[in-house]
Amino acid sequence: MSAKSYDVCGIGDAIVDVLAQAKETFLAEQNLAKGTMSLIDGHRAEELYRLMEPGREVSGGSAANSMAGLAALEGRAAFIGKVRNDRLGGIFAHDIRAAGVDFTTPPAESGPPTARCLILVTPDGERTMNTFLGACTGLGPEDVDGETLQASKVTYLEGYLFDPPAAKEAFHKAAELAHAAGRKVALTLSDPFCVERHRADFRSLIEGHIDLLFANEAEAIALTGTGDLASALATLEGKLDITVVTRSAEGAVILVRGARHEVAAFPVPRVVDTTGAGDLFAAGFLAGYTRGKPLPDCGRLGALAASEIISHFGARPEADLTALARRALP
Amino acid sequence: MSAKSYDVCGIGDAIVDVLAQAKETFLAEQNLAKGTMSLIDGHRAEELYRLMEPGREVSGGSAANSMAGLAALEGRAAFIGKVRNDRLGGIFAHDIRAAGVDFTTPPAESGPPTARCLILVTPDGERTMNTFLGACTGLGPEDVDGETLQASKVTYLEGYLFDPPAAKEAFHKAAELAHAAGRKVALTLSDPFCVERHRADFRSLIEGHIDLLFANEAEAIALTGTGDLASALATLEGKLDITVVTRSAEGAVILVRGARHEVAAFPVPRVVDTTGAGDLFAAGFLAGYTRGKPLPDCGRLGALAASEIISHFGARPEADLTALARRALP
Repeated sequence: MSAKSYDVCGIGDAIVDVLAQAKETFLAEQNLAKGTMSLIDGHRAEELYRLMEPGREVSGGSAANSMAGLAALEGRAAFIGKVRNDRLGGIFAHDIRAAGVDFTTPPAESGPPTARCLILVTPDGERTMNTFLGACTGLGPEDVDGETLQASKVTYLEGYLFDPPAAKEAFHKAAELAHAAGRKVALTLSDPFCVERHRADFRSLIEGHIDLLFANEAEAIALTGTGDLASALATLEGKLDITVVTRSAEGAVILVRGARHEVAAFPVPRVVDTTGAGDLFAAGFLAGYTRGKPLPDCGRLGALAASEIISHFGARPEADLTALARRALP
Repeated sequence: MSAKSYDVCGIGDAIVDVLAQAKETFLAEQNLAKGTMSLIDGHRAEELYRLMEPGREVSGGSAANSMAGLAALEGRAAFIGKVRNDRLGGIFAHDIRAAGVDFTTPPAESGPPTARCLILVTPDGERTMNTFLGACTGLGPEDVDGETLQASKVTYLEGYLFDPPAAKEAFHKAAELAHAAGRKVALTLSDPFCVERHRADFRSLIEGHIDLLFANEAEAIALTGTGDLASALATLEGKLDITVVTRSAEGAVILVRGARHEVAAFPVPRVVDTTGAGDLFAAGFLAGYTRGKPLPDCGRLGALAASEIISHFGARPEADLTALARRALP
């Protein structure tokens, strides 16, 4: 469309989060597996919402959070994702644009409403997510804007996109377009259950189509079908240009062909809400990567951005990430 | 309706807040007076929203915040206020009920959408509010549920209700019903500009119809037409059963006929967002008052609840206020 160039174009679910505090007993009563994401239908979304504590609505979506984080670190970011032309869709579009991210995917004029994710935050700061995909199921290959991808150093795909059926096609088209333009393609695995739902697809895609892979421990284990982290890392070693495995308070491991870097976590006074930790790690890492920084510094930027996001409710940055980065990584 | 009894029934605007960070320069560019509330129309609301930073949506409304705070302190609370039957109206209703407040006012089936308040929070934690009253303008005397008021020890009215014209009538009806049932009527002045818009009405109402008055310094000065706090306090002294003047970091002054109590503020490590400070002070005070606590203890409960709310974004409590109160005021 334009002569703009981007560091990263994220493609993912366009979701508004509804965050509320919840007791451990509530998760048990509702049969929810802590720390994971469940897909729910509109009926269940209404039921669960009725039972939830008071909420706060904040724009979310994994890749969208990452792009907001990248923009907060002065990266040039674009986002492709589907909302409906309703109030929540307007909130999503306002928030991502106000964060400095280019977002031009046309909203659906009909069909299901804008997606929402009911996020239950337990006293330990862990989040348990329940996603009603709504309008996200309408994302298709026609929404993949080739010019934006060709103008982006990295195309960043979220694994959650494997859930809405048409989006998987969009995903493949995006990877092809980006590679045809000599660009890099990154993937984040999003959730261990999502990996299990689509393991074969993920594996065949990763070999040959993905240059950078982001996963946490559970996702790396689910993808490799191994029993522990060490085996998962050994299996992944050398498979891709770069694999980043995040480990919460243990930091992260960066695997490249022939080397392995360990990155420490940034300490935080209190973990309030881990929603978005992985998304912001990826944001920081990609901010460094697209500026050609050494990989350990990319990891440190990721750890820094993740530490900010877990210090407050919600998965979009509140502090000035650029200033934080300047102080922490001069 | 029911055989329920309440400590307090709040009547006020039913609003969803959209909170965003803003620079001082943005306030200047937009001609906004820091720390105050401006009424805006739908057109201006859209314009300002477009220019704002990414937001988070949290249920608000002054009296509604106070009732949520009272419920968090284990008080029995009800709320009367008007939303539209739209998505934001659903969010408001969910949040106040999930907070433990009885809310049965029927939503409007047509007319303007649910009210929203665009709140700009500057780096010093001060909030500047821009309210589109929307469906609140539909609150009328028919919404004042007499049985609820007769069953409430205190009817708590927010001064903002003087802005939507039909609500003023509801306000008078509520005061009459409550007094006829031998109950107390409390009023919070809400905002100095609101007081200036309706000063004569406020004065004639306060003399004779109000038992408890809540005001901050600027509102007390605006109401009395005096030039400083000392003169305002001297003017208010002895006028009502109880007058509470809140003074931010300086604590509060409680005036009763023949006595004056000074209450210190609770120190907070960092003021994040002052939205709701006055609302939560009133909540804490009323929690003590309706349990027959000595007035200085009522003031301390108010200061405690206010200190919690200014430590995070948004005007509804996040911490366990009852536990905090038990620790701080054994």
